[in-house]
Amino acid sequence: MTQQTNQSWGGRFSEPTDTFVAAFTASIGFDKRLYHHDIRGSIAHATMLSQVGVLTEDERDAIIDGLSDIERDIEAGNIEWSVALEDIHMNIEARLTDKIGITGKKLHTGRSRNDQIATDIRLYLRDEIDAIDLELTRLREGMITLADREADTIMPGFTHLQTAQPVTFGHHVLAWQEMIGRDHERLRDCRKRVNVLPLGAAALAGTTYPIDRHVTAELLGFDRPAENSLDAVSDRDFAIEFTSFASLLLMHLSRISEELVLWSSAQFDFIDLPDRFCTGSSIMPQKKNPDVPELVRGKTGRVYGHLMSLLTLMKSQPLAYNKDNQEDKEPLFDSVDTVKGCLRAFGDMIPAIEAKNASMYEAARKGFSTATDLADYLVRQGVAFRDAHEIVGKSVAYGIETGKDLSEMTLSELKQFSDTIEQDVFEVLTLEGSVAARNHIGGTAPNQVRASAQRARDTLAHFTGGTAQ
Amino acid sequence: MTQQTNQSWGGRFSEPTDTFVAAFTASIGFDKRLYHHDIRGSIAHATMLSQVGVLTEDERDAIIDGLSDIERDIEAGNIEWSVALEDIHMNIEARLTDKIGITGKKLHTGRSRNDQIATDIRLYLRDEIDAIDLELTRLREGMITLADREADTIMPGFTHLQTAQPVTFGHHVLAWQEMIGRDHERLRDCRKRVNVLPLGAAALAGTTYPIDRHVTAELLGFDRPAENSLDAVSDRDFAIEFTSFASLLLMHLSRISEELVLWSSAQFDFIDLPDRFCTGSSIMPQKKNPDVPELVRGKTGRVYGHLMSLLTLMKSQPLAYNKDNQEDKEPLFDSVDTVKGCLRAFGDMIPAIEAKNASMYEAARKGFSTATDLADYLVRQGVAFRDAHEIVGKSVAYGIETGKDLSEMTLSELKQFSDTIEQDVFEVLTLEGSVAARNHIGGTAPNQVRASAQRARDTLAHFTGGTAQ
Amino acid sequence: MTQQTNQSWGGRFSEPTDTFVAAFTASIGFDKRLYHHDIRGSIAHATMLSQVGVLTEDERDAIIDGLSDIERDIEAGNIEWSVALEDIHMNIEARLTDKIGITGKKLHTGRSRNDQIATDIRLYLRDEIDAIDLELTRLREGMITLADREADTIMPGFTHLQTAQPVTFGHHVLAWQEMIGRDHERLRDCRKRVNVLPLGAAALAGTTYPIDRHVTAELLGFDRPAENSLDAVSDRDFAIEFTSFASLLLMHLSRISEELVLWSSAQFDFIDLPDRFCTGSSIMPQKKNPDVPELVRGKTGRVYGHLMSLLTLMKSQPLAYNKDNQEDKEPLFDSVDTVKGCLRAFGDMIPAIEAKNASMYEAARKGFSTATDLADYLVRQGVAFRDAHEIVGKSVAYGIETGKDLSEMTLSELKQFSDTIEQDVFEVLTLEGSVAARNHIGGTAPNQVRASAQRARDTLAHFTGGTAQ
Amino acid sequence: MTQQTNQSWGGRFSEPTDTFVAAFTASIGFDKRLYHHDIRGSIAHATMLSQVGVLTEDERDAIIDGLSDIERDIEAGNIEWSVALEDIHMNIEARLTDKIGITGKKLHTGRSRNDQIATDIRLYLRDEIDAIDLELTRLREGMITLADREADTIMPGFTHLQTAQPVTFGHHVLAWQEMIGRDHERLRDCRKRVNVLPLGAAALAGTTYPIDRHVTAELLGFDRPAENSLDAVSDRDFAIEFTSFASLLLMHLSRISEELVLWSSAQFDFIDLPDRFCTGSSIMPQKKNPDVPELVRGKTGRVYGHLMSLLTLMKSQPLAYNKDNQEDKEPLFDSVDTVKGCLRAFGDMIPAIEAKNASMYEAARKGFSTATDLADYLVRQGVAFRDAHEIVGKSVAYGIETGKDLSEMTLSELKQFSDTIEQDVFEVLTLEGSVAARNHIGGTAPNQVRASAQRARDTLAHFTGGTAQ
Repeated sequence: MTQQTNQSWGGRFSEPTDTFVAAFTASIGFDKRLYHHDIRGSIAHATMLSQVGVLTEDERDAIIDGLSDIERDIEAGNIEWSVALEDIHMNIEARLTDKIGITGKKLHTGRSRNDQIATDIRLYLRDEIDAIDLELTRLREGMITLADREADTIMPGFTHLQTAQPVTFGHHVLAWQEMIGRDHERLRDCRKRVNVLPLGAAALAGTTYPIDRHVTAELLGFDRPAENSLDAVSDRDFAIEFTSFASLLLMHLSRISEELVLWSSAQFDFIDLPDRFCTGSSIMPQKKNPDVPELVRGKTGRVYGHLMSLLTLMKSQPLAYNKDNQEDKEPLFDSVDTVKGCLRAFGDMIPAIEAKNASMYEAARKGFSTATDLADYLVRQGVAFRDAHEIVGKSVAYGIETGKDLSEMTLSELKQFSDTIEQDVFEVLTLEGSVAARNHIGGTAPNQVRASAQRARDTLAHFTGGTAQ
Repeated sequence: MTQQTNQSWGGRFSEPTDTFVAAFTASIGFDKRLYHHDIRGSIAHATMLSQVGVLTEDERDAIIDGLSDIERDIEAGNIEWSVALEDIHMNIEARLTDKIGITGKKLHTGRSRNDQIATDIRLYLRDEIDAIDLELTRLREGMITLADREADTIMPGFTHLQTAQPVTFGHHVLAWQEMIGRDHERLRDCRKRVNVLPLGAAALAGTTYPIDRHVTAELLGFDRPAENSLDAVSDRDFAIEFTSFASLLLMHLSRISEELVLWSSAQFDFIDLPDRFCTGSSIMPQKKNPDVPELVRGKTGRVYGHLMSLLTLMKSQPLAYNKDNQEDKEPLFDSVDTVKGCLRAFGDMIPAIEAKNASMYEAARKGFSTATDLADYLVRQGVAFRDAHEIVGKSVAYGIETGKDLSEMTLSELKQFSDTIEQDVFEVLTLEGSVAARNHIGGTAPNQVRASAQRARDTLAHFTGGTAQ
Repeated sequence: MTQQTNQSWGGRFSEPTDTFVAAFTASIGFDKRLYHHDIRGSIAHATMLSQVGVLTEDERDAIIDGLSDIERDIEAGNIEWSVALEDIHMNIEARLTDKIGITGKKLHTGRSRNDQIATDIRLYLRDEIDAIDLELTRLREGMITLADREADTIMPGFTHLQTAQPVTFGHHVLAWQEMIGRDHERLRDCRKRVNVLPLGAAALAGTTYPIDRHVTAELLGFDRPAENSLDAVSDRDFAIEFTSFASLLLMHLSRISEELVLWSSAQFDFIDLPDRFCTGSSIMPQKKNPDVPELVRGKTGRVYGHLMSLLTLMKSQPLAYNKDNQEDKEPLFDSVDTVKGCLRAFGDMIPAIEAKNASMYEAARKGFSTATDLADYLVRQGVAFRDAHEIVGKSVAYGIETGKDLSEMTLSELKQFSDTIEQDVFEVLTLEGSVAARNHIGGTAPNQVRASAQRARDTLAHFTGGTAQ
Repeated sequence: MTQQTNQSWGGRFSEPTDTFVAAFTASIGFDKRLYHHDIRGSIAHATMLSQVGVLTEDERDAIIDGLSDIERDIEAGNIEWSVALEDIHMNIEARLTDKIGITGKKLHTGRSRNDQIATDIRLYLRDEIDAIDLELTRLREGMITLADREADTIMPGFTHLQTAQPVTFGHHVLAWQEMIGRDHERLRDCRKRVNVLPLGAAALAGTTYPIDRHVTAELLGFDRPAENSLDAVSDRDFAIEFTSFASLLLMHLSRISEELVLWSSAQFDFIDLPDRFCTGSSIMPQKKNPDVPELVRGKTGRVYGHLMSLLTLMKSQPLAYNKDNQEDKEPLFDSVDTVKGCLRAFGDMIPAIEAKNASMYEAARKGFSTATDLADYLVRQGVAFRDAHEIVGKSVAYGIETGKDLSEMTLSELKQFSDTIEQDVFEVLTLEGSVAARNHIGGTAPNQVRASAQRARDTLAHFTGGTAQ
């Protein structure tokens, strides 16, 4: 067992940390990603400390210059991270002291790593939320454009994956847009609760230095300082709430993916995904696989898992900070990366979907998709709805037996089942007639789809115009 | 294999449903809970249908009277639910037709069970959200009151469950209040997305009847009709979002529970839970078990599980409605019940917690809780922070060896470690001095706790004043 | 606040339990399901106590007669469960004392509710495992029979839901059988760890009475007494392990369900599910929905959720028994019920699947499913595999352009891409030739499928012959 | 949008893969970890191909030499992995062809990446299982040794975290050993199902080459070839089953960790963790934090999350291989790493725990831990158990009021509650008497603990002697 010591807290210790334990408990391997936000937070902290007289202006400037240097070094790849220094905070602070001497040691006055890490993650997450916000906007715009283009394209609508009623492809795409729109709202709601400043909570109880947390909050763009120091260092709600958002988003993407995979199959043959979103097979030369939707569907599990991880992590933890919380970062980072990757791929792919209109139309013509229209026709002739349902059921059974869709039967064939059917029935049995008749807000009629696309465009413009960025 | 038939959709079928399958697929066992909301939705639907001329006023009145009768019958326990009728909708409709004849069959015009069930759940959930909102308010008020009462009560603050710095009990309780406050906000955000009307989406594509969805929305108190019929019947986001809220809430309650259990132990002995919240043992006569917090902590798993259930349920489902969705109800119902039960128990219990002040104070006196204050003292004497940390570390090592807390050492003992220490050090080493010195927003100083409690009270009043109820 | 008292542990208490708390913490609402196993465990306990001289034979007989009476009362519906008596144990014991007087109070000697409940659940679960074992056998037999029947039926095999290579339907069904076979093994592995006796652990430390745990273990059919009393009352591994088994099983059923739903669609049209496993629509008279597979697919979420529930429940619980553990029962009970229901439905449905052979064959003919066979043919003519792959890729691109499958091209068309292709290529391009050529263990050749079905039958017979029942 | 092409499947494609899509879908970033097992599998495949005559012996030797070279290159860090080559298989194969020319292209004969990756993961996981098996043995041995050493050390046993009855520390540690022992068994059960050969399944249907899968299985140490090709390429049960094992293990470690954290607190003060397993604070000089158990407790969430990830991943996937499955690796790899790290840390730490015997003893003396012994004493004097319980309850209430433990009361004080109490009661009220009296298999009596430790040692020796390694 080799050993090492850590000078920052070693005074009380009679033996150094075990080397394996040091590596096992260090977080620098993953929290180095936070370097920019750590430095940004430190600059604001130093600025505030000089405003309240804890640091001189010269000390402040030395610290800010030193930190700016370090950021450049990191971005140039000129830093070797040290596991012995545990985490991003100690790595940067040690380097700062190397650069500017004893003044570097004053930076940590009035704060603790507990409030520092909480601040870093919130700064990081806020930036990522804003980037994701833009990707959501791009995806929704792509969907609205596609929906508008395909407002007249008729396809079968499914329930239970059985042909139910004809719908338009544009209508279907707008259903996707509604899902993603709710995710967009949830992201904004989450951002409100992310944007609160923990710094100043120190280890758990606040500090005896005369800090001004409103100044720090303003410098870092936070809405307000966190109201309670114990809560500030122990709260990880924001990570869970973000991962909940991500889980719902990925769930939606998995549903869309499932449909894209189905529709790309030889059996459905409803769409073509451009080759650039697909890959082939090393053994089967004919294959063109819808890799992007499949992979996104698979990534749903990853994000659900991270949510469960974080919920489990926080269960039953007494206040305030516990080492367990170090485990909050990897699930959050990977959720952010996954969301961004999936949205980028979908943002490119969705507007590039090519509908195979003829194939969709043909599929809608089969499967008795206008059976409900026939029932509604009968009701308008005065037949009670439940009786109409029974009449149509029998017509369908006859159709299955004879291999004919309702619109392919003769009038006399139809009249076998009800005398009230007349020549005008064939208007309601067309696909065009069927979709056009669902002419109310939310219905699949092409003019409703166009109007709904326009409303979606307006809502989105209003929503993004309202961004706090 | 015994068999049965269902007259509502049997026309196309050549053999009846298997009896076991009928029971296996029926939902009446749990969706009967929705009877009130189903009837309420039907009355609004009938009212709208008469406004647009699909029903006569007489038909509307007959339907409304019939449904009102049925609701009374149900509440009087005079209904026998039929598995053969599958669900709450068909059970009520069949009874309506028994009561008022063929007019009853007209109620289902222009809707489907797909949009009907989506409407029922949203009505149900909205009512439950409003009830939970009141419980959250009550709990937060209890916490604020307790915090205010205990603003001066000193206890040890913990990190890593090691004594860290003294805090006040009131400050600790306000940390809880912050957690629950965020949950309260999330519940309201969720409510916005619940309060949208699916009715009118019919099976999936809308209907050919001249319905007016704005009328129905207004009659039922919804903010607006859902924008897309496919989305309206397939969306279960609201159930997931509610369960996410519930998971975060239970996570918070599990943390509070963990603390209550710890503090009730003989080892901590910080609080007394009134006997009425505890139970005893059938074998160990001395036991007084903190059952309520333990059980609530255990119920965390239940709600996390329901969240995972619903996320799994929706993963990869193609649009629009699939039978899978029948599985959305039980996890949601049980999450609602669990949240209400836990909040009621906590709402009663929290303000009844009795702090054992002397015991808390004694614990804070041990464990070198003012070590940071000593370090800060040294820094104010001009010692660099990292050097001060080392000096205090050695004093603590000496204290462990000799069994003395810092405040119990003599001046000359302290001077062994640093010459700069003088008599005035004993002021900062008192617990009262330590807490009072953390005197900034979010800090544990008693006057800050009182001010924070007052702000919390104001925020809550403003928040609940803004309730839409 | 109304209140009540519980005489079994009230001596130390100065105020009675709050009525709401009593209801909130009572378990009788769900643990009454364990009455049979509770009584069975009590009879064994009393028998052992009389063997070691703690009870007289008369006392033992009085207790056994009393308990047997109570069991009959319960089964006749003549018991009213009391929430004030908390749980199944106290309800039964109170009734026993009513029946047989003070001797009834002696039954609890040398045990506690902690070891009693752990014993009850294990007895219950062991019985349910044995019932599930039989259902798994039945399902596997149904699959093997179906596979054997369809050993020659050609269908497209899919990867990425794209047509890959022709397989036989029997081969596909045997893949299902392999999945379920692994579940069956896992269930047996789980049973070993269920079948251990906790009784005798008492509250947590054992008892001072001279009990003989080997006797009790033998009377109840357990393999051995649990080795450690603290572990015995706090262990819930068996519930988690069972729920893990259930999660894997439901995952498999969800995959099979997904395929059945796809294959029942108009687009695939590969199979027909008998009407008795389907339901219709209240609005669309033509619908025949594959309800059973959809619902089973949906129930996957339920079981995953229970697993997560139980894992969360046990996380971080200190030994020994905590009230949290009361929450172990409902997820376990519902997992058992769900598994049994799904297996019963699948056991009936799977052998009743009707393959639409012509439709399957036609689908396999399209989609260039024999492209790999053409590549293999070229390799046998001396072309390097990667070059062959390229040649076939170009032939497929030509086929897509001209709308011809490989087997529909003329020899000269094929020769455009490689001179080495000759007339004998058409043998390898037939579906029959393709499947027959995959003639090794695990391959899809019909004779391999038949041999594999026979091995499966033998393995299953050997496996179930080894059942401990 | 920059673009690239992939020569291995490009023939059918009209446009190259988008560069972002290529990076998004590539797996080389994480599957490079499998290089050793990929090469090992390829060597066995080439050996088998030469045995059946598909490769010459010279070709086989060239391939084996080339692959061995590549393995050395990788281990020397001389390989640059290419994202354009997608995965570990193509990266190695491309390099092989660079090295040995066209023969390298023959290696892929009769296999596909689908069966290749399934084989690689199983080989990898089997090796990791064997390494974990050794760590489990080491941990169990450490526990048994500790238990034996502390067989006489008395501490309070808890239920509901309330003092219940005295137990010995050795007994408590053996409870841990039982938990880990079950995990050990589950790992072995899992290994059986891992150790099956997928290779030969090719893409999904088997291959037309005359392969001999029994040869390959034997060369790679697999028990048998997988029985069905569709199942072989789509099965990921082994990853889920391993992660279930890992979840139960981490759950156990979280419970032990919780106890170590509690016992290290100033309030419990039962144990001392050596400084090398702890870290300090950058702000609070007195802190010594139990980092290792806290971090392990936190890692529970990570592993639960991976389990949920994998279960979600596989839900509803139709056969056979889908791109989704690429997501199986990271959760599995991280679960393996986490399990190994936690076991290594616990294997070092557990035997190094120092019990603070006096502090444990003192705690057991308080809290009326021998109340049950008093009740049992009364029963032996002929008092009915329920009455004895009531008498003791009143004595305890008196003790709380007067601040005296039962053993500290005088005989006349005790006689207030029952005349049957005599001088000999004080023997049963000692802690030593209490633990010694629980003298049956599973009980906490020191001689039982020693006997149980010996049985555990024997069982473990027998179990590990039976290892297949």
